[in-house]
This record gives sequence, C-alpha cells and structure tokens, in this order.
Amino acid sequence: MDKSAPSPTRRLLGIDWGTSNRRAYLVDGAGTCLADRADDQGMLAARPDFAGSFARLLAAMDVGADVPVVASGMVGSAQGWREIPYLDIGTPLEALPDHLVCIDDPRAGRPCLIVPGYAQRGAHVDVMRGEETQLLGAVALGRRDGWFVLPGTHSKWVLVEDGIMRRIATFMTGELFATLSAHGTLAPLMAGEDDDAAFIAGLEEARVGAPLSNALFGVRARVVTGAMPAAQARSFVSGLLVGAEFVAAGRAAPLTCIGSPALQARYARAAGHFGVALAGLDPDRAYCAALARFLDRIPS
Amino acid sequence: MDKSAPSPTRRLLGIDWGTSNRRAYLVDGAGTCLADRADDQGMLAARPDFAGSFARLLAAMDVGADVPVVASGMVGSAQGWREIPYLDIGTPLEALPDHLVCIDDPRAGRPCLIVPGYAQRGAHVDVMRGEETQLLGAVALGRRDGWFVLPGTHSKWVLVEDGIMRRIATFMTGELFATLSAHGTLAPLMAGEDDDAAFIAGLEEARVGAPLSNALFGVRARVVTGAMPAAQARSFVSGLLVGAEFVAAGRAAPLTCIGSPALQARYARAAGHFGVALAGLDPDRAYCAALARFLDRIPS
Repeated sequence: MDKSAPSPTRRLLGIDWGTSNRRAYLVDGAGTCLADRADDQGMLAARPDFAGSFARLLAAMDVGADVPVVASGMVGSAQGWREIPYLDIGTPLEALPDHLVCIDDPRAGRPCLIVPGYAQRGAHVDVMRGEETQLLGAVALGRRDGWFVLPGTHSKWVLVEDGIMRRIATFMTGELFATLSAHGTLAPLMAGEDDDAAFIAGLEEARVGAPLSNALFGVRARVVTGAMPAAQARSFVSGLLVGAEFVAAGRAAPLTCIGSPALQARYARAAGHFGVALAGLDPDRAYCAALARFLDRIPS
Repeated sequence: MDKSAPSPTRRLLGIDWGTSNRRAYLVDGAGTCLADRADDQGMLAARPDFAGSFARLLAAMDVGADVPVVASGMVGSAQGWREIPYLDIGTPLEALPDHLVCIDDPRAGRPCLIVPGYAQRGAHVDVMRGEETQLLGAVALGRRDGWFVLPGTHSKWVLVEDGIMRRIATFMTGELFATLSAHGTLAPLMAGEDDDAAFIAGLEEARVGAPLSNALFGVRARVVTGAMPAAQARSFVSGLLVGAEFVAAGRAAPLTCIGSPALQARYARAAGHFGVALAGLDPDRAYCAALARFLDRIPS
C-alpha cells in the first residue's frame, strides 16, 4: 500500500449517483469539502445519456481538467452507465480504492472511475451499491467495528469487523412505506402527522413478530373497530417497518446510523426504545472521508 | 331455538356482496342451489346506489316477491349500503341468523337482510365481513372445530371451537402480491410463470422468519447476483407470502381451506410442505349451507 501523505493541493470530484438523486462533492486531499451540488439527475433521469449528464455536471461545477472524478451508486448497475461486477463481501473496505473501474467514454470528455458495489453470496444473499463508500468513510474516520444502519428507500444494516463487512441485510422500508401510502387498503389511512406514541406502538407490534401482511391488516382492523384513530396509522406503520429492522438485525452495540438528521432522529427514537446505543454519523462527512482515501491512491 | 324442519318449498336468495365482486345464490330450504349469478357489481362499483343495484340483480334473476333476501360481506361496511356493527367474536356462528339487520329501502323494492361481520377486540384486533357466512356453512356441514383458512386478497385464518370463533388472523397476502407485482423494485421481476420449486423455496424462506421487507429485497439480490432466475421471482414471492401465513397461524390439524380449486391447490401444496393435513371445502357449498340456516329462522 502506498502510504504517501495526502497532498492538500490535489483535488477530487466524487459523485454519489443513486437511483433518483445525485450529489457531487469536490474535496481536497484531506477530505475537506470545497464545493458540492445536488440535483435530480439520478440513474433513472440520466439514462441512457450518462456521458452527457456527466459532462453537464462537471461543466456546471467548473471542475478543472486535472481533477479526477469518482462515481458510486446505481450508476454502476446493470441499468446504469456500465455494469461493474460486485466485490465479494470479504474484500476489506480499505481495499476499495484498488478496485475502481475506469469508464473512458469520449462523449464524457474525461474518464470516470466507478466504485464497485458489494455482494454477499451463499445461504444469505444481499447486495449494495453506494453505501460501501460511506462505510469506507466511516472506517477512515476510525469506526472499524460494529453495526451500521443506512436508512432510506432500501435500509442497509451492515456488520463490520476490523474494516471488513461480515453481513449485509437490506430492508425495503422506505419503498414499502411509500407503496403502502399510495396503493391499497391502507393508503386512505396514511395521511396523518408524525405521532410519537403511534410510532412506539408500531415498534412494539414489530417486537411481537407477526408477519407484516398480518400486522398491516391489524392497522386497518384497529381503525375500523375504533381501537386506533386513523390519524395514527401512518406513524404506526412507520414503527412497524423500522421496528422490524431492529428486531431482525443484531442489537449488539455499537450501532452507528449514517443518515440525514431526520432519519437519525427516527432511528435514535427506535434504538432508545429497544435499549440500543446509537451513534450518528453525517453521510456527507463519511462520503468525503472516503473520497480522500480514493484520492490518496490515484496517481498524480 | 326454533328447530322446525326446513321446508323445501320455501326459497331464499343470498348475496355474497364483496368489495369488487358479487355472487347471488337462490336456494331451497335444504340449501340446494337452484340458480346463481355472478357479476362485477361489488361494493366499489355499486355505490352509492346500492338499492338500484340490488333491484336490478333481483329483476335479472326473476326472483319472486315472496323470496326473502340476505346479503353478506362488505355491503354491510362503512363504505357499503349501511354500516352494520360487528358481532363480538364470542357470538356462536349458529346464532348468526338471530342477528340479521333489515334494510328497508323503498328504492330497493323489498327488504334486504344484512349479515353482520365479526370483530375480535382486545390485545389482538381483527375483523371480518363475509367469511362468517362461509364459516357458518362449514359448521352447518359438521365442521365445528379446527383452523379454517379462507385465502384471497385478505386471507383469513380462523380458529373455531365447537362452532365459536376463538381467533381471527387476517393476512394481506393477495393485496400485497398484487401491489408488489404492479409497483416498485420487484414489479419488473414478477412476470414469470408458476414455478413449483420457486414456490417451495419461498415457503422455506418464510420459515426462516426474516421480516418481509428484508425477504423481498433478498429476491432482488438473488436475481442481480445470478442466484435465482428472474422468472422464478413471482412464485418465490407467492411462497413467501403464503408461507408467512402457515408459519404464523396455528399448525394444529385439522385445517380446512375454503377457497377456489386453484387456491385450494396452492394452499394444499404449502400445507404438505409444512406437514399439515389440509381438507378442502367448496365455498359455494358452504355459503348455501349457511343460507339454509338463515331460511330456517326467517318467518314464512
């Protein structure tokens, strides 16, 4: 491994290029964010012209031609710019900079280095694309061990031991919540405001462990029998889904939540209810710490 | 209780009036079906003019003015013709004929007797509207004890002891399957044909007991890593959902499935896999047996 000291004069642009959104960070060699930009040109909006979308982003940020660019997330999936094979879960997170894959598309104007995702195979199968970069950042920031939860459309729970992922468990929490809010029996009930007591009641129901198909009908049954105000259904369902993550995933401390302040607050409430100690980590900070590791390994 | 012998010359029209569909059966005092008619004038299509829809059905079937009419199902819900309060789960199924509620709407041309649904309240809350009539029929046919499963959009598992319901557990199996097939991450994968091995694999995954939000993402993870052909996803998800019913509900024999031949076959496959003895009961036969009990109690 090349352990040369990071050069603060060099810069790197990192693009967190997900399914629906995209966020770009210009960092120096210490991982300090010099500029950032978010837009809605995620994979679904950008395809099929990823090269053009990439070139427009760089032009908008006025990134010098000498600045290397790294992109992570669904941009490297089968529906993305180019499908990059998953790394095996046993590959240490700190080895990620050795596995960047270069796309050199003339229409893009310059090369783009794609960060591969990870797959766990065997009896338990799971995958990630994008979260590995935040996790490398966490390791770079000294968090080499414990459970990490990255909540969202597809919440990831990841067990890390000495900087190596041992277990990936993905929960379609955000997606199911959105789908149930828009379609089917419960949708008319899902308009309520945040209700802490209902969220906690949902967590408790998750602890009981009934299948989701049964617990969701229970929401309707409570409302039609008057056992629950309809306004509480939304937070109760949120509690059911978030609670299922805590019940299923390891509860052993330490647990770190890498998510927005709003999601950190929600997961902290659940963690407190289940008696789990939860630390927060800002996802932008983690991402930039990973970018510094990438820049470290990219030749001048 | 009036135990007078049923009169085979009297007749009754029973309407199984659900959310999306409606089926009417003309029976004699022995519960023999003399005529039936199915249409798509379920609650959603019929409202708000239930009286007119009712009158048109009777005219189409040319039902004599002397024939009493009973209707069960969502027609008695808050979104139906009139909301009829739930009976308590402790009310014996054979007492159901004592609890019919008469709607006498001049626009309907004749009275309609509505069968109330049932609610279980307390720590475990669940409800039914419509299935109670099939269950009364099962009891009338001598099946007074055991678990009953009525599969469908909302699958009901009901524990009956000596003709009294002790437990209702509803699973949104059919609804979730339809929603996942139409919306979200898995929808593009849900086009496969029936695949027995994949259905069984889904049942096994349900036995493992991971939360549905996690198990569903596992389907995607298997497909994108090549561990499962996309064509198997549909049957695997079906196995996950049906399997969750068997894992959660009592597995003690005897178990009776009241459902269409196709659903009986699917549940029989699952029951066999889980080592549960499952008997089938034709839902039309059960419904008509219940109608004979209603006719028994209606004054000439």
